[in-house]
Amino acid sequence: MMRRISIPLEIGKVTVGGGAPIAVQSMTKTDTRDVLATVNQIKQLEDCGCEIVRLAVPDEEAAESISVIKKSVSLPLVADIHFDYHLALAALKAGADGLRLNPGNISDREQIAMVLVAAKERGIPIRIGVNAGSLPANFEPDATLAERMVDIALEQIQVMENLDFNLIKVSLKAFDVPATIKAYQMIADKIPYPLHLGITEAGLPRAGAIRSAVGIGVLLYQGIGDTIRVSLSAHPCEEISAAYEILKSLGLRKYGPTLVSCPSCGRAEIDVVALAEAVNKELEKINKPIKVAVMGCVVNGPGEARDADVGIAGGKGKGAIFKKGKVVKTAVEENLLEALMTEINSAFPNGEE
Amino acid sequence: MMRRISIPLEIGKVTVGGGAPIAVQSMTKTDTRDVLATVNQIKQLEDCGCEIVRLAVPDEEAAESISVIKKSVSLPLVADIHFDYHLALAALKAGADGLRLNPGNISDREQIAMVLVAAKERGIPIRIGVNAGSLPANFEPDATLAERMVDIALEQIQVMENLDFNLIKVSLKAFDVPATIKAYQMIADKIPYPLHLGITEAGLPRAGAIRSAVGIGVLLYQGIGDTIRVSLSAHPCEEISAAYEILKSLGLRKYGPTLVSCPSCGRAEIDVVALAEAVNKELEKINKPIKVAVMGCVVNGPGEARDADVGIAGGKGKGAIFKKGKVVKTAVEENLLEALMTEINSAFPNGEE
Repeated sequence: MMRRISIPLEIGKVTVGGGAPIAVQSMTKTDTRDVLATVNQIKQLEDCGCEIVRLAVPDEEAAESISVIKKSVSLPLVADIHFDYHLALAALKAGADGLRLNPGNISDREQIAMVLVAAKERGIPIRIGVNAGSLPANFEPDATLAERMVDIALEQIQVMENLDFNLIKVSLKAFDVPATIKAYQMIADKIPYPLHLGITEAGLPRAGAIRSAVGIGVLLYQGIGDTIRVSLSAHPCEEISAAYEILKSLGLRKYGPTLVSCPSCGRAEIDVVALAEAVNKELEKINKPIKVAVMGCVVNGPGEARDADVGIAGGKGKGAIFKKGKVVKTAVEENLLEALMTEINSAFPNGEE
Repeated sequence: MMRRISIPLEIGKVTVGGGAPIAVQSMTKTDTRDVLATVNQIKQLEDCGCEIVRLAVPDEEAAESISVIKKSVSLPLVADIHFDYHLALAALKAGADGLRLNPGNISDREQIAMVLVAAKERGIPIRIGVNAGSLPANFEPDATLAERMVDIALEQIQVMENLDFNLIKVSLKAFDVPATIKAYQMIADKIPYPLHLGITEAGLPRAGAIRSAVGIGVLLYQGIGDTIRVSLSAHPCEEISAAYEILKSLGLRKYGPTLVSCPSCGRAEIDVVALAEAVNKELEKINKPIKVAVMGCVVNGPGEARDADVGIAGGKGKGAIFKKGKVVKTAVEENLLEALMTEINSAFPNGEE
């Protein structure tokens, strides 16, 4: 995977693009005017690994809340703006580290110019955030969805570049995965700016994470994408955990433990699913990039378990514990979890990696 | 997406390859010798959309069980064979519709020849099922994982072709997603046979489905793959539902309802997550390819809801119900679910599509 080269941007303390690690972001689902609830959710997001957080700014009060929220949190804050450019100005004044403008509902060039002047003064990047659900109906009605998303973004980029503004990031999100992939592929060669990837309105966690993984995964595999947001109808930490799983599966980020576990079959002589669930529960407490295998039988068990930092390969009502390729002990089924955790804890003692 | 051309095979009543719909498969997790439990799980699998089911055959009794199981189920049955070619012969005799042989642990050419003669006599296809966890340590130890998986498969294919056997399917599974993608890409151009895709030992449903979606999704997007199995440490119907989500996200299969729902944010004035969950629960009862949108606000709400068969776009404590692009009614928040379901039920009355 060769990464596409893009011009790096600073969103607060986080670099996006230019070969920086792919940043993981989400959005608060609280009322931004409710400062306490929003600060609380941002802190939860920071704890679960979020690196950039976006907040809806539907009115002046929400914009002003940013200045208060900013005092209590350390994650970079991006203001999500629709319809009213005044809200972009107010969010900048309140200290937003980034703006997202939707070209589908802010298109007046003079209004955009005023926002650009204020953003440039402060060195604040702007994401051109296109969404298939909010394209003007009269915008290139005969073109494909991918073309329409690309063209509305290119139009906005042109306006920005004409005013010598280039702190630009772009996203082109749709629910339609092939259209989203096509749109990002088309724009990737046309502009030098970082790309923010996402599949919009992807749904509830189970289906939505899969849909996002396919769309974002195909693009990342092609080297496209500098930051990602998984959109799920769920607590935002579910979005973060899905985002890291996507990145980890392609070897693009390390984050927390990885559990390799077999699906079980008629060959298994231990209860693989129950054991995998129990191990996973223990691993959730360990924030280390450890790879743990739980395997039911001898077919692939020892092979995968050897490849993991620590692993179990099950046998008849018992199992072998492997560590860095060597059997270190065997235990009966009911003691396997404890034996495995003892090895994990000795391999990764507190505070050490 | 141009599909790779492959020679079609018949696994029982299901065609795999040659441009047939990408078949969805899973594996029983019961003891195959426990005929009642296995039949029961196969029936569950049929109900949840599985099209081909594989069973572990670790001993003669398991092989013989196939003949009894086959009388009670209609899904094609594939016998999963490791180590002992006698079990392949016994499974064929018992009426298996397909075999999976692991070239990592059955490599004796005379033994393979005996299996091929028996399979050919009955017109039964064989999958060469390579798994990274069971490659012989001494097989091309200096090559990459992808090369090793491809080469061991090509070796086995050569043996089969030399004996004029070509009812072949191939899989090259690893936990390592980039290695798996690379392996399938390498072999796709070298052989004309259908490819069975999977990421092995992918783990528990949440992480495992994402990992599988990235790996299988990247390949399907490239036109590679004729049948898929998502491997999860969970009930096999979870594997089927994840498989269909992957295929649906790329427009490769239709299966059941699709829920478009927004992640919610500080702009939403209805409880999107709760409503989406409630709608999803109702949709689980409807086995129709309907697209339903649950959107929190006016930004993308009406746009996405218009694109869906039926949708809700939320406003302040109320919402509009859209149907095929037109607002058909508005309702207060607590009545939205009922209003939506009334529209869905009238759009898709029982027994009609």
